[in-house]
Amino acid sequence: MLELRHRGSCPGPREAVSPPHREGEAAGGDHETESTSDKETDIDDRYGDLDSRTDSDIPEIPPSSDRTPEILKKALSGLSSRWKNWWIRGILTLTMISLFFLIIYMGSFMLMLLVLGIQVKCFHEIITIGYRVYHSYDLPWFRTLSWYFLLCVNYFFYGETVADYFATFVQREEQLQFLIRYHRFISFALYLAGFCMFVLSLVKKHYRLQFYMFAWTHVTLLITVTQSHLVIQNLFEGMIWFLVPISSVICNDITAYLFGFFFGRTPLIKLSPKKTWEGFIGGFFSTVVFGFIAAYVLSKYQYFVCPVEYRSDVNSFVTECEPSELFQLQTYSLPPFLKAVLRQERVSLYPFQIHSIALSTFASLIGPFGGFFASGFKRAFKIKDFANTIPGHGGIMDRFDCQYLMATFVHVYITSFIRGPNPSKVLQQLLVLQPEQQLNIYKTLKTHLIEKGILQPTLKV
Amino acid sequence: MLELRHRGSCPGPREAVSPPHREGEAAGGDHETESTSDKETDIDDRYGDLDSRTDSDIPEIPPSSDRTPEILKKALSGLSSRWKNWWIRGILTLTMISLFFLIIYMGSFMLMLLVLGIQVKCFHEIITIGYRVYHSYDLPWFRTLSWYFLLCVNYFFYGETVADYFATFVQREEQLQFLIRYHRFISFALYLAGFCMFVLSLVKKHYRLQFYMFAWTHVTLLITVTQSHLVIQNLFEGMIWFLVPISSVICNDITAYLFGFFFGRTPLIKLSPKKTWEGFIGGFFSTVVFGFIAAYVLSKYQYFVCPVEYRSDVNSFVTECEPSELFQLQTYSLPPFLKAVLRQERVSLYPFQIHSIALSTFASLIGPFGGFFASGFKRAFKIKDFANTIPGHGGIMDRFDCQYLMATFVHVYITSFIRGPNPSKVLQQLLVLQPEQQLNIYKTLKTHLIEKGILQPTLKV
Repeated sequence: MLELRHRGSCPGPREAVSPPHREGEAAGGDHETESTSDKETDIDDRYGDLDSRTDSDIPEIPPSSDRTPEILKKALSGLSSRWKNWWIRGILTLTMISLFFLIIYMGSFMLMLLVLGIQVKCFHEIITIGYRVYHSYDLPWFRTLSWYFLLCVNYFFYGETVADYFATFVQREEQLQFLIRYHRFISFALYLAGFCMFVLSLVKKHYRLQFYMFAWTHVTLLITVTQSHLVIQNLFEGMIWFLVPISSVICNDITAYLFGFFFGRTPLIKLSPKKTWEGFIGGFFSTVVFGFIAAYVLSKYQYFVCPVEYRSDVNSFVTECEPSELFQLQTYSLPPFLKAVLRQERVSLYPFQIHSIALSTFASLIGPFGGFFASGFKRAFKIKDFANTIPGHGGIMDRFDCQYLMATFVHVYITSFIRGPNPSKVLQQLLVLQPEQQLNIYKTLKTHLIEKGILQPTLKV
Repeated sequence: MLELRHRGSCPGPREAVSPPHREGEAAGGDHETESTSDKETDIDDRYGDLDSRTDSDIPEIPPSSDRTPEILKKALSGLSSRWKNWWIRGILTLTMISLFFLIIYMGSFMLMLLVLGIQVKCFHEIITIGYRVYHSYDLPWFRTLSWYFLLCVNYFFYGETVADYFATFVQREEQLQFLIRYHRFISFALYLAGFCMFVLSLVKKHYRLQFYMFAWTHVTLLITVTQSHLVIQNLFEGMIWFLVPISSVICNDITAYLFGFFFGRTPLIKLSPKKTWEGFIGGFFSTVVFGFIAAYVLSKYQYFVCPVEYRSDVNSFVTECEPSELFQLQTYSLPPFLKAVLRQERVSLYPFQIHSIALSTFASLIGPFGGFFASGFKRAFKIKDFANTIPGHGGIMDRFDCQYLMATFVHVYITSFIRGPNPSKVLQQLLVLQPEQQLNIYKTLKTHLIEKGILQPTLKV
């Protein structure tokens, strides 16, 4: 049976021992040859859920073929496989980082397409594992239904985003108004059609597998689509709310690996035996420092701090604004112990830098649990990587498992501590209320503003 | 192996043949005796997911013991088992219906408690099936974690309801303000603690089962807790939005059963072979007529039509209002073919009665798919009922499977076609905006109201 070598999912506090080898692993062939018995045996039972065969002949999910580009293999042919893998990983890491900078330069719309692409690929990777776990039996309609459900849930979430952030654009287009006005009804009807199709596709001999795949699809949708919707919402708040969290997680991965590599002694968690406390703590402090500096650098540019707004007059995204207080330098008096260390009384900071400490603390302490979860998942289904999309790294999901929890945390953090409700969304809701409801709210708001001294009481003539 | 007798989940277009017998079914004992091998075999693999034993000795989930009250058994002892079961079902049906009327009389708060109780029991029934499917292996922490996740998700949804509908009450209580202000952050932190506990509870030999149970719990939460939250939201819109849909589903169950019993010829769907087209169509027309009449009767009373509001001065729920246009009689001119049939030109109706046709159509055509889904689920795991909570009927889930889809449909219908955003929620969001955002919205609203002629322009002095 293929001996499981674990790379540690998102390269968290990395293995203190030499990196795993990919070459030379025998591709696990599929041991199960399909024998069609005459009697209509209930394959659902005989197969059970991957099921009624002894452990040894449960088909290993063969690692997918190696996709390292030929020219790279030739260029590195002289090296030992250990260093070859290092170089492949290194080159691919740099390529990814530079691609990322290029996309940032191209603007928020491209970033949104990138997020959508990553989400679909992660969904594809996890669903494909479901198929490979159950691959030998064709569940009727199932591939179509999985992708259909993905389409429905994306239609719903992206429609909500269009309704929230493209109100001015929507007002101009008649059909769009209809689609947005009845968006939830249309999305629910689309989902119901898929639900009914699933019920109609139930086949006696596959009931259990079909329900397993139904649950598998829905949990995957919950993890990938819902959270990538939150990533987009964070992006609309300002690119800095997208870049600092993501780069903190990446920084934590790399620094935890380095600290683990050089100082790693005490194992951290059984689930990832190669991860160490030294890597974990080292990663934490470096990530907090990194986040603090990155926040300082990015806070200077409107491009990164202004909420992303769609302007229908120029028909494109605009990031211009009067930066909020979060991104205006303020002077703080230092606490005593820092006064002694830094030998100065006061310091000027962007308030966002203080918030960045919360983000990088989460990225270092809780973010890795997303990685441990993915590690456990891969061990449960005896796979080394989610896929082989990126040579030397595995699948997209292997790179982004820690990012998912982070995205939800940032969204909840913003709505709890940073901004209240979205003003344009509140106005939009106001304008669809009944006239007398609008009038009541107008009067209440007027009294409130006068009480607060924001509005001068006007004497009626 | 226990011959599967299918009662048809929510008693939809009922079996055209005699009802199933419960007595005399041998309780399927558990065939699997635990043999602890010395070598630490990976029980996850040897067991696989319920798994590596041939079909015949996959333990049937033994039907739970019969809970019919003794006095009932004695009273019916003379009858044949067929009629005994009929009487038990009939008596329990009448008991449930009268209990339901009593709770309606006691008011909306009691109805909310009833919904909460049903949700928790349905969750318990489905989770227990998960345990019985995998019961022979103790997954560490799992019962605690399942209930903990239920608590977190309920805390989140009920907190959102309190924030939406108890704004005045919340304003008065200092601590409550804090809890509501940071509600999403607290809920997310609670959930994360459970997520991290799950990761830390992963044990090498149980990985796969633990991930299956994790998915099982989350899909169950998705089905039961999310949709029961929508039932409560519908109830706040007015009791009529709760009663008409629920009674339409019950009416469809009973009438489809009767039509199937008396006229059933053509099988409807392989999944529930005893259901017939005659039952399905007969049920549809009777449900539409029933819904139309029920809407007419209930529309007369403020108690049923007014939105449920919490009034802090009387510290209780209040259902007093000026009924909206939906619940005011209006005269409509009849379409030609109806003029001929009814021999009258015009008719006075409540507009809600027209909406009731959409609700009862859904209850008859799409609602049953919730029942088919539950049937497929029970067949997949070879169980006859979700539990035996109600003698003669099975579990609570057996009675409510069709109601879940209905609740979501009603919620989406209300937000799409009936009311716009909730005015008190819009006002609440307005009051937490920044002063200059409030001022901008005030000015935009003022111009809008003046343009619409709802507000007279005031001449400044």
